[in-house]
Amino acid sequence: MSPKRATSLKDVAEAAGVSVTTVSRLLNGSLELPSETKLRIEKAIRDLKYEPNPHARRLSRGRSDTIGLVVPDIANPFFATLVSAVEEEADKRGLALSLYATLNRPGREISYVTALGRNHVDGLLFITNHPDNGELASLINQTGKVVIVDEDVPDAVVPKLFSDNDHGGYLAGRHLADHGHRRVIYAGGPREMISTRRRSQGLERALKERGEPFQVIRYEGSYTVEFGREAARRFLDESMPATAIFASSDEIAIGLIEVLRAQGVSIPDEVSVVGFDDVGPLHLFAPPLTAIRQPVRALGERALALLLETNWQEPESLASEELLPVEIVVRNSVAPPSKS
Amino acid sequence: MSPKRATSLKDVAEAAGVSVTTVSRLLNGSLELPSETKLRIEKAIRDLKYEPNPHARRLSRGRSDTIGLVVPDIANPFFATLVSAVEEEADKRGLALSLYATLNRPGREISYVTALGRNHVDGLLFITNHPDNGELASLINQTGKVVIVDEDVPDAVVPKLFSDNDHGGYLAGRHLADHGHRRVIYAGGPREMISTRRRSQGLERALKERGEPFQVIRYEGSYTVEFGREAARRFLDESMPATAIFASSDEIAIGLIEVLRAQGVSIPDEVSVVGFDDVGPLHLFAPPLTAIRQPVRALGERALALLLETNWQEPESLASEELLPVEIVVRNSVAPPSKS
Repeated sequence: MSPKRATSLKDVAEAAGVSVTTVSRLLNGSLELPSETKLRIEKAIRDLKYEPNPHARRLSRGRSDTIGLVVPDIANPFFATLVSAVEEEADKRGLALSLYATLNRPGREISYVTALGRNHVDGLLFITNHPDNGELASLINQTGKVVIVDEDVPDAVVPKLFSDNDHGGYLAGRHLADHGHRRVIYAGGPREMISTRRRSQGLERALKERGEPFQVIRYEGSYTVEFGREAARRFLDESMPATAIFASSDEIAIGLIEVLRAQGVSIPDEVSVVGFDDVGPLHLFAPPLTAIRQPVRALGERALALLLETNWQEPESLASEELLPVEIVVRNSVAPPSKS
Repeated sequence: MSPKRATSLKDVAEAAGVSVTTVSRLLNGSLELPSETKLRIEKAIRDLKYEPNPHARRLSRGRSDTIGLVVPDIANPFFATLVSAVEEEADKRGLALSLYATLNRPGREISYVTALGRNHVDGLLFITNHPDNGELASLINQTGKVVIVDEDVPDAVVPKLFSDNDHGGYLAGRHLADHGHRRVIYAGGPREMISTRRRSQGLERALKERGEPFQVIRYEGSYTVEFGREAARRFLDESMPATAIFASSDEIAIGLIEVLRAQGVSIPDEVSVVGFDDVGPLHLFAPPLTAIRQPVRALGERALALLLETNWQEPESLASEELLPVEIVVRNSVAPPSKS
C-alpha cells in the first residue's frame, strides 16, 4: 500500500537465511544463537538498514517497556475509547501495552493484577467499576507503580486521575434548572462509587442554588444498558415522578431511551434527558441527546503520563488526585417541563 | 455487596501473617518460600476453605491457561464487543486472556504476536483489519496455534472464522432491490480485504438476479467514521449518483449519516441507507437504521472453541474456513427511490 515499503523483519530473515521468528527472537534477546548465525543476522540488519520496532525490544537498562492496563468492561465504548487512547499514547512513547479486561469481576481483577506484577510490566493503569472490599486496594498498594483511573479504589495510596464528575453533575443540573426543571431523576451506578456520589452531588448543588424547592430522586444500579431499561420501567411504573432524567452514562441513556421510546414517551416533550460520557453517536439519536462529555482521550493520555512522570520514590507524591475538565454538549433532548 | 462474601486472598494472607502478594505468588508457583511459611499459608487455605481463582494458577501440566487475542481497533465497538465475548468465554473455561490492541499497524501486530509467542500463551486469536504483505502470514505460520478471525490473512495456513460476508451483502442487496433500487453505492473497506470483496459480491448478486440493468459504485476506504464522512461528501460532490448506500460498517454508517444529515439530505426520502455490524445503538438513530447484523458474540465464542478444539497435530485440519450466519435487521432507513 505504501509507495516505498520500509525494510521488514522478513527482508532481514531472507537475507540472513533464517526465519522471521529467529530474527525477532534475537532482537528480543530471548534466543541464544550460534555466533555465526548471530553475526549473519546482524550483518543483514546493517546492510538493509533495518530499524527494529522498539516494542519488540527489551531495553538493556532492565525495563520491560511494557505498560499494563486493566479495564472492567471493554464492550462499553467509554472504556474501549479510553484503552485506544492509552494504546495511541503508548505507541507514541515506544511502549507496548498489556491489556486485561476483567468483566468487572473482583476475582479476575485480582488475578490479572497479580499476573501483571509477575510479568514485570513497568507500571499499571487500573480501572475498576465496582466497590472494593479492601482486597484490591491492598493488592494495588503492594504492587507499586499503579495509577488509578476513572473510578476510585478508596484505600489505595497511588496517584489517581478522574473526570471532574462533580462539575459534570453541576453542568447537567444547571442546564435542567435553566429550563425550569425542579424534580430530576439521577439514574447512575452504585452509590459507593465516587462517580455516582460526585455527579449526583453536583446535580443537587445546581438545583439548590436556584433557592426554590427541588427534588433529586436516585435510581442506583450499574452503568449498563440493562440498568437503563430498568430505570425507564421504574420511572413509568412510578407514573413519571420527575420532569427530567440525568442518565449517568451512555449505556444507561441507551437503555432508558429505548424503553421510553417503545412506550411512546416523547423526549423532550414529556420528559427531558441529559446523558453522560458522550462517546457513542448520541448526535444521531432521535432526538440528538444533550450530554456531559468526558475527556476520554485526555484521560488515557494523562494516565500514561502520570505513570511515567510520578516520582515513585517520594511517598508524598503518591497520594495525589487530579481531575480533568468535562463540558456539556447541548443538543435537543431538554425542553421546559410539560404543563400536563 | 454480596450477602455472604467468599473467602478472599486477603483473608488467607491475614491468617497466615503474610502479604496478599506472597500468597498469590505461592499459588502461581512463582515464589520459593521457606517451607515453614509455605505450610502456614497452605494451612490457612485449608482452614478457610479458600478456592484459588483458576486464572491465577499455572497448571502443572505445563499449560499457561492463557489465551492471547490481538485486535486492530479497540475503539471500534464491533471489535470491543468481540473482545468482550472472548473474555466471557475464556472466563467460563477458566482461562485468562492477554489482549493486545495493535492500532491496525503492521509493526505493532508483528511485535505483539512475537511477544505473545515468547510469553507462552496456549494459543492466539488474531484479528487484523488491513492487507498483509506476507510478513504477518509468515509469522503466524511459524507461531502455531493461531486462529484468524473476522478478516483474512490470505497466506496463513491456520483455521479461519468469518461472518458470512457474502450472504450479508446479498441480504442488503435483496432488501434494496425489493424496494426498487438499482443503482447502489458500496461504501466499504480496502478492496484487498475479503470483507469488502465478499460483501460487494453478495450485493451485486442480489441486484443481478432481478434481471434488470443495475449498477454498483464502489467507494473504498477504511472501516472508520472518517471514511464514512468522506464517502458522504463524495456522494454529494458527485450529485448523488445512486438511490441507496450500503455502508459496510457501523462506523462508516455513522460518519455517512452525520454528513448527510448536516447537509439536509433526508434518509430514506432522498437516499436509502443499509448498515453492517449492528453493534451500536442503530435502533435509536433518526431514522432507525436497517442493518446487517454480525454474530459478534458468536464469533468470539466460536473462535475460542476453535482454538481449543483444533487438532494442531493434523495439518489437514488446519486449513479450514468456517462462516457464521448473519441476518438483516429491518428498521426505517430504506424506502423506494424518490421520483425527483
